[in-house]
Amino acid sequence: MSVRKMIALHPDAKGHANEPMALAAKHAMYCALFATSCADACSAEAMDMRQCIRTCLDCADVCTAAAKVATRQTADDDAMVRAILSACMDACHICAVECDKHDHEHCRLCATMCRECADDCREALATLH
Amino acid sequence: MSVRKMIALHPDAKGHANEPMALAAKHAMYCALFATSCADACSAEAMDMRQCIRTCLDCADVCTAAAKVATRQTADDDAMVRAILSACMDACHICAVECDKHDHEHCRLCATMCRECADDCREALATLH
Amino acid sequence: MSVRKMIALHPDAKGHANEPMALAAKHAMYCALFATSCADACSAEAMDMRQCIRTCLDCADVCTAAAKVATRQTADDDAMVRAILSACMDACHICAVECDKHDHEHCRLCATMCRECADDCREALATLH
Amino acid sequence: MSVRKMIALHPDAKGHANEPMALAAKHAMYCALFATSCADACSAEAMDMRQCIRTCLDCADVCTAAAKVATRQTADDDAMVRAILSACMDACHICAVECDKHDHEHCRLCATMCRECADDCREALATLH
Repeated sequence: MSVRKMIALHPDAKGHANEPMALAAKHAMYCALFATSCADACSAEAMDMRQCIRTCLDCADVCTAAAKVATRQTADDDAMVRAILSACMDACHICAVECDKHDHEHCRLCATMCRECADDCREALATLH
Repeated sequence: MSVRKMIALHPDAKGHANEPMALAAKHAMYCALFATSCADACSAEAMDMRQCIRTCLDCADVCTAAAKVATRQTADDDAMVRAILSACMDACHICAVECDKHDHEHCRLCATMCRECADDCREALATLH
Repeated sequence: MSVRKMIALHPDAKGHANEPMALAAKHAMYCALFATSCADACSAEAMDMRQCIRTCLDCADVCTAAAKVATRQTADDDAMVRAILSACMDACHICAVECDKHDHEHCRLCATMCRECADDCREALATLH
Repeated sequence: MSVRKMIALHPDAKGHANEPMALAAKHAMYCALFATSCADACSAEAMDMRQCIRTCLDCADVCTAAAKVATRQTADDDAMVRAILSACMDACHICAVECDKHDHEHCRLCATMCRECADDCREALATLH
């Protein structure tokens, strides 16, 4: 169940995936699910978590798009990859800052995942021309 | 079936939607479906359309995220909205340029929708602080 | 900006879209955005709307998938289309019932859209073998 | 980076996730990315892979929805979860059968992931009332 291995099987990849890009795809995928889960948990908390629900749902949508775009290897699409990975890096930073404000374990875990994903997006962006 | 009317019913909107933002949400939604359809049609054409398939699929993913983020009104999320609408504007420009290269009616219609969506994203971005 | 027209430009469609399928794709797309908007509005209401938030978000995810699958025309995929359109019909019924319980205009509009989408899915399903 | 752990942090979960549901969510997420990758690789192959591209893209859309719905824990939504997990199980079976027809490593890996996801959906469905 390795995203990197799957990507390396693309006929143009010849067995070699762009490792930072594959990691960004995998972590954007995880971050989309973590932020979906955090928004869901926030909506069930007793206090008003509406800002965090909003931010997590937005972050999940951006990460879902980033994961799919970063996974694709066909043809040249550097400008497209740059656009969505930059947005994903920003979205994850914004979501981590919001989640850091709250004293819930799910917010802490979501913030950690967001920072990891933002770092991976930055490293993947550095591999583009 | 008006996206603008639906958004205006948000408790904080008090009946007044941000019109350019509502239009961007609606057209990003349409553009997601048009690019999905164009990628599908391209995969059924006799000639090699792999670059256009890739670009349209990526554009559809970015537009899907942009439509959802632009629709939400709860709390303050300007930085998030700016990140994904900028990415969507870029994605639509890239997709329009790619589709313009091909002599298929579905590519022409997709390019028109992409340019419309890019324009609407720019106008929606201008309403942010 | 006609989904039906776009679908009819597929090389295998020869200018003739499956009209009920095109309508289901379009309305599933709208329903995804309306349910996204309703969940967002619900999260900003003063009372506890957590069940409705959950149901609307789930419905939006199912409708997003249904819209994309119903849009594609390439190759034979009736069993796949049947699976997701059936799920979409169910999801829209469930969401309409939940939204009907609440005295908010956004819930009323979302419920109306859900019922319309469920009807269109049923009619599109009837065109499959 | 454990989906199960994240889900268990929901305030209503009290530390105990529904393990088969968490596994279905995780594997539907992976399957969405594997099928996205397989469709992309298929579009770059020399031979006509249009049926497999279509099926993989559809499967990815259904899996993306299933992963998000299965992740949510708030409120009661068994009928909704049943609808999309059943569709996901069907979609994964259909995609595995299609991928089995092709002699590409990416198709083989995608088929394996699809079968795993279909099995997990069936086990998650068995936990519903």
